[in-house]
Amino acid sequence: MFYDISLPLRNGTIIYPGNPDILVAPHHQLPKDSSNISRIDFGSHSGTHVDAPRHVDTGAMPVDQIPLETFVGPCRVLDMTHCADAVRIEDFEKYGGVKVGERILFKTKNSLRGFEKFYDDYVYLDGGAADYLAEKGVILVGIDALSIKQRGSKDFRPHASLLGKGIVIFEGLDLAKVPAGNYTFIGLPLKFVGLDGAPARAVLLS
Amino acid sequence: MFYDISLPLRNGTIIYPGNPDILVAPHHQLPKDSSNISRIDFGSHSGTHVDAPRHVDTGAMPVDQIPLETFVGPCRVLDMTHCADAVRIEDFEKYGGVKVGERILFKTKNSLRGFEKFYDDYVYLDGGAADYLAEKGVILVGIDALSIKQRGSKDFRPHASLLGKGIVIFEGLDLAKVPAGNYTFIGLPLKFVGLDGAPARAVLLS
Repeated sequence: MFYDISLPLRNGTIIYPGNPDILVAPHHQLPKDSSNISRIDFGSHSGTHVDAPRHVDTGAMPVDQIPLETFVGPCRVLDMTHCADAVRIEDFEKYGGVKVGERILFKTKNSLRGFEKFYDDYVYLDGGAADYLAEKGVILVGIDALSIKQRGSKDFRPHASLLGKGIVIFEGLDLAKVPAGNYTFIGLPLKFVGLDGAPARAVLLS
Repeated sequence: MFYDISLPLRNGTIIYPGNPDILVAPHHQLPKDSSNISRIDFGSHSGTHVDAPRHVDTGAMPVDQIPLETFVGPCRVLDMTHCADAVRIEDFEKYGGVKVGERILFKTKNSLRGFEKFYDDYVYLDGGAADYLAEKGVILVGIDALSIKQRGSKDFRPHASLLGKGIVIFEGLDLAKVPAGNYTFIGLPLKFVGLDGAPARAVLLS
């Protein structure tokens, strides 16, 4: 069974403040033209997307150089809907911790609230928990918010600690319909050469 | 083993004539800003992409409504590098024909010539062969050209016959490094609501 965990993209899809707006418009249209073709303007961190190490370090790995194996394979969805404001180390310990090589997605209250509007007070990953995940050597981390970092915070560890170790971050996942558990993750970013990140269609198979 | 069969996307990536140009530019940049974020302008049929039925019929299925199962599963790469100008029915019969439910990718001379420039005389799918594939009931067809139809031709069957039966078309595949044979195909288009098609990252697993 497939779960689509990607945000729909259209005019007006929520963006993280300061990112390019998402604009979709007809470019060729039937019957005036011989087919329908659309024009798309958006940002590399629109909707469901990958943060590559280059997002926070211009000399680091861009999205097209990340090994494809990272984006396809077993993953664990952890229920973090009890977290009031942030996902912390003790929340992982509650599930027996995490292991080297794991893909870990957090389902938080963000998924339950939905993605029609952007909320400043989304649930984020605590800096200490980012250090913990980086030290444990997971390979991919995903959250149901457009940023893994608290809005406005000067604690940059959620990006810096994970991306600094080459751990891929997925942001903008919609886990509302996904029960916690084990799945096969597929989430391949568009092949934008040299970029800081890229949109992706992400799914889970059970 | 993973084969990346997607075209790289950057400023200047070839487009099918008349489509929007592919433009990538910095939006936020370190150290002036707190992270690197890029702006992307392109078309729904840029690079490696899916043609949805809505591409040729405004009332037909858009890309976000195509069942996810279509985009993940067994596929067969057929060596069509002997075809001078088009892939025809007899070229499929040479391989014992095709079966209902198959995903079929054609590797042609286009992959060997490369994708640095756009060539008007790319190898395309013949209209009769499109009717043949539609009648056989394959579920997905892919070609290593930016259009499955001959440039300038008034024979619209390569799109019309396949999409008219709900058969998904992948265009812009790069099969240069892929030996003919059986693989698992993964190629999930971005979730653009109501659109005629969408870019995708496509890979083969052996």
